[in-house]
Amino acid sequence: MSKDFPTRSENYSQWYNDLVIKADLAENSAVRGCMVIKPYGYAIWEKMQARLDKMFKETGHSNAYFPLFIPKSFFSKEASHVEGFAKECAVVTHYRLKKSDDGKSIVVDPTAKLEEELIIRPTSETIIWNTYRGWIQSYRDLPILVNQWANVVRWEMRTRLFLRTAEFLWQEGHTAHATAKEAIEETERMLGVYADFVQDYLALPVIKGVKTANERFAGALDTYCIEAMMQDGKALQAGTSHFLGQNFAKAFDVKFTSREGKLEHVWATSWGVSTRLMGALVMAHSDDDGLVLPPKLAPIQVVIVPIYKNDEQLSAISIVAKKIKSDLEKKNISVKFDDRDTHKPGWKFAEYEFKGVPVRIAIGPRDIENQTVEVARRDTKEKSVIHLTDLSLKIEHLLDQIQDNLYQKAITFRESKTFKADSMSEFTKILDVEGGFVYAHWDGTSETEEKIKEETKATIRCIPLDNKLEEGKCIYSGKPSRQRVLFARAY
Amino acid sequence: MSKDFPTRSENYSQWYNDLVIKADLAENSAVRGCMVIKPYGYAIWEKMQARLDKMFKETGHSNAYFPLFIPKSFFSKEASHVEGFAKECAVVTHYRLKKSDDGKSIVVDPTAKLEEELIIRPTSETIIWNTYRGWIQSYRDLPILVNQWANVVRWEMRTRLFLRTAEFLWQEGHTAHATAKEAIEETERMLGVYADFVQDYLALPVIKGVKTANERFAGALDTYCIEAMMQDGKALQAGTSHFLGQNFAKAFDVKFTSREGKLEHVWATSWGVSTRLMGALVMAHSDDDGLVLPPKLAPIQVVIVPIYKNDEQLSAISIVAKKIKSDLEKKNISVKFDDRDTHKPGWKFAEYEFKGVPVRIAIGPRDIENQTVEVARRDTKEKSVIHLTDLSLKIEHLLDQIQDNLYQKAITFRESKTFKADSMSEFTKILDVEGGFVYAHWDGTSETEEKIKEETKATIRCIPLDNKLEEGKCIYSGKPSRQRVLFARAY
Repeated sequence: MSKDFPTRSENYSQWYNDLVIKADLAENSAVRGCMVIKPYGYAIWEKMQARLDKMFKETGHSNAYFPLFIPKSFFSKEASHVEGFAKECAVVTHYRLKKSDDGKSIVVDPTAKLEEELIIRPTSETIIWNTYRGWIQSYRDLPILVNQWANVVRWEMRTRLFLRTAEFLWQEGHTAHATAKEAIEETERMLGVYADFVQDYLALPVIKGVKTANERFAGALDTYCIEAMMQDGKALQAGTSHFLGQNFAKAFDVKFTSREGKLEHVWATSWGVSTRLMGALVMAHSDDDGLVLPPKLAPIQVVIVPIYKNDEQLSAISIVAKKIKSDLEKKNISVKFDDRDTHKPGWKFAEYEFKGVPVRIAIGPRDIENQTVEVARRDTKEKSVIHLTDLSLKIEHLLDQIQDNLYQKAITFRESKTFKADSMSEFTKILDVEGGFVYAHWDGTSETEEKIKEETKATIRCIPLDNKLEEGKCIYSGKPSRQRVLFARAY
Repeated sequence: MSKDFPTRSENYSQWYNDLVIKADLAENSAVRGCMVIKPYGYAIWEKMQARLDKMFKETGHSNAYFPLFIPKSFFSKEASHVEGFAKECAVVTHYRLKKSDDGKSIVVDPTAKLEEELIIRPTSETIIWNTYRGWIQSYRDLPILVNQWANVVRWEMRTRLFLRTAEFLWQEGHTAHATAKEAIEETERMLGVYADFVQDYLALPVIKGVKTANERFAGALDTYCIEAMMQDGKALQAGTSHFLGQNFAKAFDVKFTSREGKLEHVWATSWGVSTRLMGALVMAHSDDDGLVLPPKLAPIQVVIVPIYKNDEQLSAISIVAKKIKSDLEKKNISVKFDDRDTHKPGWKFAEYEFKGVPVRIAIGPRDIENQTVEVARRDTKEKSVIHLTDLSLKIEHLLDQIQDNLYQKAITFRESKTFKADSMSEFTKILDVEGGFVYAHWDGTSETEEKIKEETKATIRCIPLDNKLEEGKCIYSGKPSRQRVLFARAY
């Protein structure tokens, strides 16, 4: 644990990288662009997984598992899909190694070349829709509501821990429906699940919206997304849900007999969130002293640190500490009692502050006399002395308050960084001076979107779902526009 | 659902394959040797994962995640490890595809060749020990108790669903210790966890033992294993736990400063179980009518089927069924009330029998009058009429009884198929006529082990941990032996 890293205002990007590594969330591996997710980071991801998995099951989905490998030819079957993914994929060409002729090293065995190369899945629409062909004959087989937790690989050139890595972990839902209406409903339902999850668990407000054609998933008719604001004012896409129409059903010849006896192509959706959410979590709430974790995702929600000079004091404190721990655990609160004698209390305070533990309880000999403890919250750093009576109830409420406070703080911050711009000069000035989200009129063309991106590095994050129609003129072309769209620089 | 498949006695191997596919556990994919795990099969795997994960955490382990890719050079660092795994691995050589010159297909972009090839992990010792070098400086950093849930790839030539697939899912524990003693304790502890899990959850007795040098994991000093008997008398290795000594620490230069201030290499273990357990589960208990699932791993533990002629009857039955369902769910029993009007009760009975649902409750109009239900158990096919009073408690006990019965049945079967042989002729005769486990004296040499394998296809499954020393003569060489070892033909 170490604090020798820049503050957010000094160097936001470096602050993020250093924090992720020094707080033991993840590190770069020996393989270019691939990360190691360390136990403390993985414990947060497991909490995310557990909650999302429950939400998927509550909305009728089951998990399944499809192959890591996708035959190269599958990619060619959906034209826009291959465009989107062929440029950045890992290709398996051989299936054996052998000793080199001099016996000193191992080399790829040239006789073990695959007839058809295999692609490590960057996403699984193709292999899954090839499989669904065998599962679907009749409307009675629909809907299929399947999710997969998996690793995927996209050979990104510039990578950053959690935010953009060559291999990442995610879940990908792939559903099949009898009608377009049902598929669109599913797409929107899962966007809602993501928005609820990010708001309730990551304590992060999001804008729900639809991507422009330029930013759509390769193979989708519509891509819905949730967009969150980071502390540097940049946007981060936190999840996407795609209405795929009949594109993959047509590419993989998946048809069903309808109730009316007609043979029709199946309608599809896919939706995913990834370990990118870990990056969003860090960037949204943490501060110059280290991580700040929302209680609902903190691996350790409460840490108890004893303050003592001798064994006698420690043993008196331990009795109280263990009682508190046990009371809190009955409320499903995760507690660590750190009675290691290898580190001083001050070191421990700094450690847990750095690791973002939401609540710290310190107990000294004076507390034992007074039947009190000192409680410090990580988010505001406020300390208070609390009597042991009803302590666990008070801690439970405090955790809720912290969760809520982080969310409110993030909303307030986002509001303070959300603007309207009615001209390009205003638009650019806001982005350069304030950063943040800018609502502006746009003429609806890809050309204008591209030009604005080239000139300002800002992209259309989405056309918000709750947009009110409003007549106006495109800030770039001056052409008429019927609504403002959300622009931002983004991760 | 269909029963047109061979019985166990007609063709055990085909019975297994057909059952796995027809019961919707898994199917072969478009990628050679890789399977699709279907929702019903995956739900069983999830139950296995949940329980094992809890057991790992209770024994102090945390989860983490390491890269899918291993640089080729890492393999060469541990000599016996590369011998064991180089022959069957998927190799990534390129990181991009492009359009072919005629624009009609996509091809591997030859300019995107990796400087060093990447191997898809067949197991992760090398990448993990390369990482641990950065995590370990002092004895204070030890032990490291980490587990990973992941997919791995071994390019097997002959594959069978769950039992042997090119890609499979597993967990791999990788621990680092200050002393050999601690590492051996860990190796044995985790073997115990596996044995308890397989016995308590899969309802399958196992023999705990140590592998001979021939059968050891590539890079281990000792491989511990659990061996279970399938219904055809063959053995199935259900889990392994390896004491790796300092082999990987030496290969990857992982040293620590001991309490005494000396620089020493770290001691290692690794241990794993995989989706192979799904194969063991099916082979151990299922019968000619379909799956038989132990209640603790059944995705649906109780199914309720209404028997009715009109809507009025159905609605009366539904009230009772929903009450039963809710009562059982309060006891954490998973229940499906199948009130679909698209299928007849007889079809549903056959379906759930085939899918191995442990308990079926049928409710008809007469039952409503009498305040009873008909309860059928899958394992013995016994039916009984039970009064609604305390039904949920009775069902809870029945599920325990079924779990226990399956275990007892498996033990009894194993005992009936376990033999001693004192000569090669006796040995061969037992294997050919009875099948099963054979305890025999062996002279301790790899040569004899190989010869016996060549002549009989039986291998030494293990040297059982609870062996009693007993003087004797090797059945093959006649040389002196101090204990019998466990032979069997194996999956």
